[in-house]
Amino acid sequence: MSRLAEAAASLVEAGQRMDARNWVPGSAGNLSARIDAERIAITRSGVHKGRLTRADIIAVDHAGAALAEGQKPSAETLLHCQLYRLFPPVGAVLHGHSVAATVLSQQGAITFSNYEILKAFGFNTHELDVILPVYENDQDIARLAAWIEPLLIREPPIGYAIAGHGVYAWGTSVEHAFWRLEALEFLLQCELERRRLK
Amino acid sequence: MSRLAEAAASLVEAGQRMDARNWVPGSAGNLSARIDAERIAITRSGVHKGRLTRADIIAVDHAGAALAEGQKPSAETLLHCQLYRLFPPVGAVLHGHSVAATVLSQQGAITFSNYEILKAFGFNTHELDVILPVYENDQDIARLAAWIEPLLIREPPIGYAIAGHGVYAWGTSVEHAFWRLEALEFLLQCELERRRLK
Amino acid sequence: MSRLAEAAASLVEAGQRMDARNWVPGSAGNLSARIDAERIAITRSGVHKGRLTRADIIAVDHAGAALAEGQKPSAETLLHCQLYRLFPPVGAVLHGHSVAATVLSQQGAITFSNYEILKAFGFNTHELDVILPVYENDQDIARLAAWIEPLLIREPPIGYAIAGHGVYAWGTSVEHAFWRLEALEFLLQCELERRRLK
Amino acid sequence: MSRLAEAAASLVEAGQRMDARNWVPGSAGNLSARIDAERIAITRSGVHKGRLTRADIIAVDHAGAALAEGQKPSAETLLHCQLYRLFPPVGAVLHGHSVAATVLSQQGAITFSNYEILKAFGFNTHELDVILPVYENDQDIARLAAWIEPLLIREPPIGYAIAGHGVYAWGTSVEHAFWRLEALEFLLQCELERRRLK
Repeated sequence: MSRLAEAAASLVEAGQRMDARNWVPGSAGNLSARIDAERIAITRSGVHKGRLTRADIIAVDHAGAALAEGQKPSAETLLHCQLYRLFPPVGAVLHGHSVAATVLSQQGAITFSNYEILKAFGFNTHELDVILPVYENDQDIARLAAWIEPLLIREPPIGYAIAGHGVYAWGTSVEHAFWRLEALEFLLQCELERRRLK
Repeated sequence: MSRLAEAAASLVEAGQRMDARNWVPGSAGNLSARIDAERIAITRSGVHKGRLTRADIIAVDHAGAALAEGQKPSAETLLHCQLYRLFPPVGAVLHGHSVAATVLSQQGAITFSNYEILKAFGFNTHELDVILPVYENDQDIARLAAWIEPLLIREPPIGYAIAGHGVYAWGTSVEHAFWRLEALEFLLQCELERRRLK
Repeated sequence: MSRLAEAAASLVEAGQRMDARNWVPGSAGNLSARIDAERIAITRSGVHKGRLTRADIIAVDHAGAALAEGQKPSAETLLHCQLYRLFPPVGAVLHGHSVAATVLSQQGAITFSNYEILKAFGFNTHELDVILPVYENDQDIARLAAWIEPLLIREPPIGYAIAGHGVYAWGTSVEHAFWRLEALEFLLQCELERRRLK
Repeated sequence: MSRLAEAAASLVEAGQRMDARNWVPGSAGNLSARIDAERIAITRSGVHKGRLTRADIIAVDHAGAALAEGQKPSAETLLHCQLYRLFPPVGAVLHGHSVAATVLSQQGAITFSNYEILKAFGFNTHELDVILPVYENDQDIARLAAWIEPLLIREPPIGYAIAGHGVYAWGTSVEHAFWRLEALEFLLQCELERRRLK
């Protein structure tokens, strides 16, 4: 199987798992994986990410341009490309719209304090406060990417949220990216519950 | 496969997906699709929409009358027919009862503000306030349809809710209608969570 | 297939559906169906109702006594027998422990107002207030049954809850009982959400 | 099938059931079963507990040391070993991270009052207040185990929570441990809902 086909198979499965959690309503969300030094596999625009087929995953270059004619990559492709460029170990990026992420990101800053599962992001203790950056939404994706570039470089985050829009999570592989998305969504759900209690 | 059989297969699957989300408790909800210029396929009355078989989908004309003897279409057939009549691009209509839709529709007006997923309804920005109309419930469906007709014409909505009863969503195909129902239910769930936080 | 085997197959499936909704945690819950004029099929005591096998469904008489040696019927068998005795049309009884039912039943009286889905219980309008009786829990099931008998006769309810314990729903068949349990749980979930909002 | 293989098969299945409930996000959680007088089967470190294979279950001795080279048992192995040592009837231990357990354990003491499902833990009445101990989290697992040892001996609990970290449940077999984990998570969910209502 070619590398593109392998990446596609992983992304199709990741989309099904995200859909099972209701993280990709309608045609929302996008998923990608690094194929090699030149190419990224990413979901097409306008498809349901829980019902992807091999044909819905297309190859783009690192500037986000489709490598085959007639294929329209995700509108948010540049945000994926940016992460692969800034962080060489990144092998996959997953973006979903969960209710928790969407609602909390509209309420301002998000900080996770003293959760054991923070260790999933490489920390070796639970005794800390970890910020999940929340960026303003912007329909001009190039502008949004340019705006967050210095922020990502200065303080590489565990992931990020776009207000009213959802979260971006990444990892060394599609499987690892899914674990981190799962951990992030778990933390967001905990925060939502915690804020309701106080 | 005949057009009715095709439409039926799509509706049976849509019902299963709605049931997996707990949107069709008991015998609640109804699903339809436009077959051709004369006929609409719609779920029979009194069946569980998550466990439909081909025989549970019947053909009606645009006045809502069953085209085969002994078949009882959904009690809410006229609401489906109205949407096909008023909006020619509509190819399918899905009505479910989610907890979020039922509870919020009893609380008054519903407005979604600044959600990225609003773009699923054709808007090209997230920076807006979109109203989801909430209509009073009425056991006389013909009367209800007559009452909402001018409202639908004057300001075609992204969908609508009936107080204490659930939502109606539509699209160009069963798949597209499901995406829009999913997006609507996602927004309603976000609203429920948002209101609990403030 | 014998009638007991048929009833057992339906109950095994109903248990799986209840488990999929998290309504039968651990060995909680019990399910039964009327076999004929003399016998009732009911789940054994001490088994997970989401993973029933044919052997976990046993026959009891109308006094709740097992009809085969060495079989221990559900501790709550008498509550099932009572419903079959008082209401001849009843063909199946399902008892589950949902979070909504358990929590709300500890808060006092439960009334459902103006929900469309109330029509699932035989009403022909949504414009009413329907009470779901909540009975005190009691480890002496015979005593509990004797206490609620006059209440059930005087005002046959749409189902009932036992405080901190869950709900009982019934219908003309296992499928019909499941629809009514689903509708009841939907209403309880709506009530839980509604009370959180105000 | 060897005893280790049997235990592994049960644990793989338990992991899938826990994952279906979202109790093992990312690589969180750990599952074990007593093989015989000398050995315990436990999940490897750094794997997703919802997608375990036979190779992800390894044998350790009662001091928590892996019995085959190159295998890294769960970081929390000592907590499992402690339970097998202190409570001879225990045949399996399951540890998950649910949102309810994580959030409530950060809020202080947890007491369950008058829930029928408490009978799943061996009580013969529902009329009681049962404490679920909450222990401070500690990255030094040996130190954590030493600290809780006298507490577990003095008053054997129905399970325990580690603040911001999740719950530990145990039973005579993997199936029995899952029932008790399910009952515990049900109670935690009820508590979360109850506290939101008052």
